[in-house]
Formats: sequence, structure tokens, C-alpha cells
Amino acid sequence: MVFKTDIPVRWVDTDALRVVHYSNYFRYVEAAEEELYRSLGFSFKELNEKYKIAIPRVEAFCRYEAPARFGDIVTVVLRLEQRTEKMMRYDFEIKRKSDGELLCAGYLKIVGLDLVGWKGTALPAELMAKVVNALE
Amino acid sequence: MVFKTDIPVRWVDTDALRVVHYSNYFRYVEAAEEELYRSLGFSFKELNEKYKIAIPRVEAFCRYEAPARFGDIVTVVLRLEQRTEKMMRYDFEIKRKSDGELLCAGYLKIVGLDLVGWKGTALPAELMAKVVNALE
Amino acid sequence: MVFKTDIPVRWVDTDALRVVHYSNYFRYVEAAEEELYRSLGFSFKELNEKYKIAIPRVEAFCRYEAPARFGDIVTVVLRLEQRTEKMMRYDFEIKRKSDGELLCAGYLKIVGLDLVGWKGTALPAELMAKVVNALE
Amino acid sequence: MVFKTDIPVRWVDTDALRVVHYSNYFRYVEAAEEELYRSLGFSFKELNEKYKIAIPRVEAFCRYEAPARFGDIVTVVLRLEQRTEKMMRYDFEIKRKSDGELLCAGYLKIVGLDLVGWKGTALPAELMAKVVNALE
Repeated sequence: MVFKTDIPVRWVDTDALRVVHYSNYFRYVEAAEEELYRSLGFSFKELNEKYKIAIPRVEAFCRYEAPARFGDIVTVVLRLEQRTEKMMRYDFEIKRKSDGELLCAGYLKIVGLDLVGWKGTALPAELMAKVVNALE
Repeated sequence: MVFKTDIPVRWVDTDALRVVHYSNYFRYVEAAEEELYRSLGFSFKELNEKYKIAIPRVEAFCRYEAPARFGDIVTVVLRLEQRTEKMMRYDFEIKRKSDGELLCAGYLKIVGLDLVGWKGTALPAELMAKVVNALE
Repeated sequence: MVFKTDIPVRWVDTDALRVVHYSNYFRYVEAAEEELYRSLGFSFKELNEKYKIAIPRVEAFCRYEAPARFGDIVTVVLRLEQRTEKMMRYDFEIKRKSDGELLCAGYLKIVGLDLVGWKGTALPAELMAKVVNALE
Repeated sequence: MVFKTDIPVRWVDTDALRVVHYSNYFRYVEAAEEELYRSLGFSFKELNEKYKIAIPRVEAFCRYEAPARFGDIVTVVLRLEQRTEKMMRYDFEIKRKSDGELLCAGYLKIVGLDLVGWKGTALPAELMAKVVNALE
């Protein structure tokens, strides 16, 4: 299973080539991840406060195929591609909503970070269970 | 009449004080303006391409009352406060959706810019008529 | 006296009109403010940690005169225009470095915020003294 | 040989975890690339205008090791790792300037894009020659 969110391209996301700046696709993916967690009853902030755990990114990759432009709505598709106790890898695709054209694809690897000792730790089991339930 | 849009605060919008960076409220206002034009069948891009006109901001003002935080959804409220042939002034309020608390308020003054001669010009009559119809 | 900093316009700062997005001038002003404090031996972070005080913006205003473009270097000029125990108002001008053309001008009003009680407080006397010394 | 640039971490670059948002390291790399081209007498804009060529990114990768924080100055180190007529791959490392700690490392693959036909093309020979001369 996958999780999908639609995101309108904002004017400020574009650059002087009149296309979305490549760094902003990572922000679209994070918006989708935020919406996934919201739908599961979590947020980055609640993870910080409830579990004293953050979930930083340790790897980010993207291959760009075609540009998004102002006026486009993009669909971010998230898949859970890999997971261990301490790591989840989300694979993503971003498509133009109007015609389904693939704009870019890549992945994010996230890990658990113990905010008290600022060192690696297991991801919260409750988060993992809900993500697995939603995406596998 | 007013135009309202809800916008989720993104993690990337926050800063190390754990609140939304003050410059991002202007981006929320622009997102609301984009949604207003979308609802009216316009976009910045279509204005550029159809009328060879851009609508840059010539003044921006904001007074900050309370911070938004990650997890909040904010409601942007737009009013058309002033207008001439060449200028529109949108007044805005941004409130926290959950409890209606006022976070900030201000205005944006926009003008018509002829993209061929890169000089001031009247705002497109069709845009003005639709905005007036929606907001007055 | 004034404080001046040069800032190169980054590609990511531009938008599809091929000019700097209006919200980014506020970021240039903040970069100049950061450089001012760095030159005085302060930082936002040190204020937070040493004095448990933050200095949020309570008002921001800008009037735009001409666009900056990619490749430009802009000069931010800061003046201390007003001050009380609890408030400082910085007036700014941003000019294109190559020809001195005024791009925009405005002000920021900042106040002291007690991070323990999250309420208004006097600005740190040490900060105020150094800013006054540098800018008056 | 490598190209190095120092970049101060801006307050707006941080997020509510009090560290630099992961997407901003890609912006630091681009700032370094811009400084490299400036030192060689090129800019993205001049490439667009002189050669009708853009140099979009087709792949971006980063592995994160440690966080940068507000107050840090980071050093971006660029290497030319691979090149063909149509593609250059820059490998980068970002280190904290004060102690040299590695914060993240990755690469960007850029290609030539003919802005007239909006299709792949050779990178400008003059750009390639200068980059090779500076980095090999």
C-alpha cells in the first residue's frame, strides 16, 4: 500500500528557470510524511515530546525526470521500502496530478534519535506499528 | 466579504525557537492569494502569459501577536481593503484554526507591472472584477 | 552610524518572474542583523542560552522599489531608528551593490521575550549597549 | 583539486529541533557551486542568456552524519568526480569550520539542457574547460 498527498506548487517554490527548485521536492516529500503521520495521529512534535525521540533523515536521494511549474498540483506517493527496529526507508514518487507524469523519484532514510542522549535509538514501536499497518 | 484558506504549518517553516519563522507568514498570505486566484480561475502564471502583466508586491506589512508552532493549522483571512485601477491592497489576518487566536495581521499592496516594458500598468480588468466580486 | 553587509543573491531566492521573491528581502535583513550581532560578539542562540531571552520581531514593513536578480550582490544597510528598554527598531535599506540602486526599504521592530515565562521583558542591557555603541 | 566556500548558518535555516533542516544542505551546496562559477566568470544566468543552456540537477544524494546549528559556519568542499560531454557530477562534503567535523556528504549530477528545444545537450565547452581546470 502507498500513502498519497496532493500539494499545490507555490510561486515561491519556483526559480528563475520558471520551474520548481530541486531542493523543494524534498520539502514536498516531508509535507507528505507529515500528512501521513497526521493521518496516523502522530507528529514530529509529539514524537519529540512524548517519546523524547526525533526522527532525523540520514540519507536523501532524488532523481529528477521532468519539472513541475507554478500552477501544477503534484501528487507525492510514499512507500515503506525497508525497515529495521532503528530505521525506515520511504521511497517516493512525485507526479504531476493533471496527467500523471513522473517528475522525480527517490528515497529518504530516517532513524530514531534519543533526544536526551542525542544518540541513535529504536523508532517508537507505536509509530512503526501504525506506519507498517498503513503502508504494508 | 473575505476569503479564507487553511494552511498546515510545515516542520521546515519552524526555526530554532520552535515557532514559525516570521518571514513565512508572508508566504502563507501568498498561498492564500494563490488559492483565491485559483478559485477565480486565475494564476500568477496565466496573468503573465495571457496579459503580459505581473502583479508584484510594492508594500508588505505585518504585526506579530502570537507564534504558530509545528502541528498548528493556520487560517489566512484576506480582505480587499483598497483599490485603484493600478493597485489592490489586501489586508490579512492569520489565526490558529483550533482556537481562533490571532497570530498576526497586516497587508500587502500589489500593482500591475507590464512585462513587456517592465513599467507600471493597470491591473487586468477581468482580475479586478472577479476579485471585487468575491471580496466586496 | 550604520551597519552594512553584502549578500549574494542565490538562485533559490529567485522566482518564476526571474527576480528575488519579496519575502526573501526580510531574510537578507535578518542575515545582516545576524552579522551585526556576530560582529558584536552575540548571536540569537547565545541570547537564548545566556539570558534566557529571545528577540522576536513584532513588526515588519518593506516598500519595494526595484527587483534584485540572480547574479546581483545586495548591500543591506541597518540603522537603529528607535529604542526603549524593551524594543529596538531597525530601519533598513537594500541596494544593488554594483550601482547603488535602492531595491527596497523598511523596518523591523524587535522586543525582548523572556523564554522562561514566555512574556515581554527588557532587552539584555549588554546587547543594547553594544548595538547603541555600534549604530548611534 | 577542490573548491571550498564558507557559509554561515542562518537562523531561518534551522528547524524546531534546533538544527539545520536537511533540505538546506543542498542549498549550501548550490551556493558553493554558484561561488565556483562566479570565481570562473560564469553564472547560471549567463549560461541561460549566452548559451541558451541551463544546467539542471538530475540526481541529488546526501548522507547526513551530524547536525549544523545556528552560529556555525560550514565549509562546503566540491570535487568534480565524473564528467562526460553532457554531464558533470560534483561530490561534496560539508564540514563544521570550527572543528572540521563532517556534517554530511553526497553528490549532485548536472546536465546540459537546451532552453530552446528544452532537451538534453552538451554542457558549454567553455564552462567544462574552466571547471576541469579548476577542479582536476
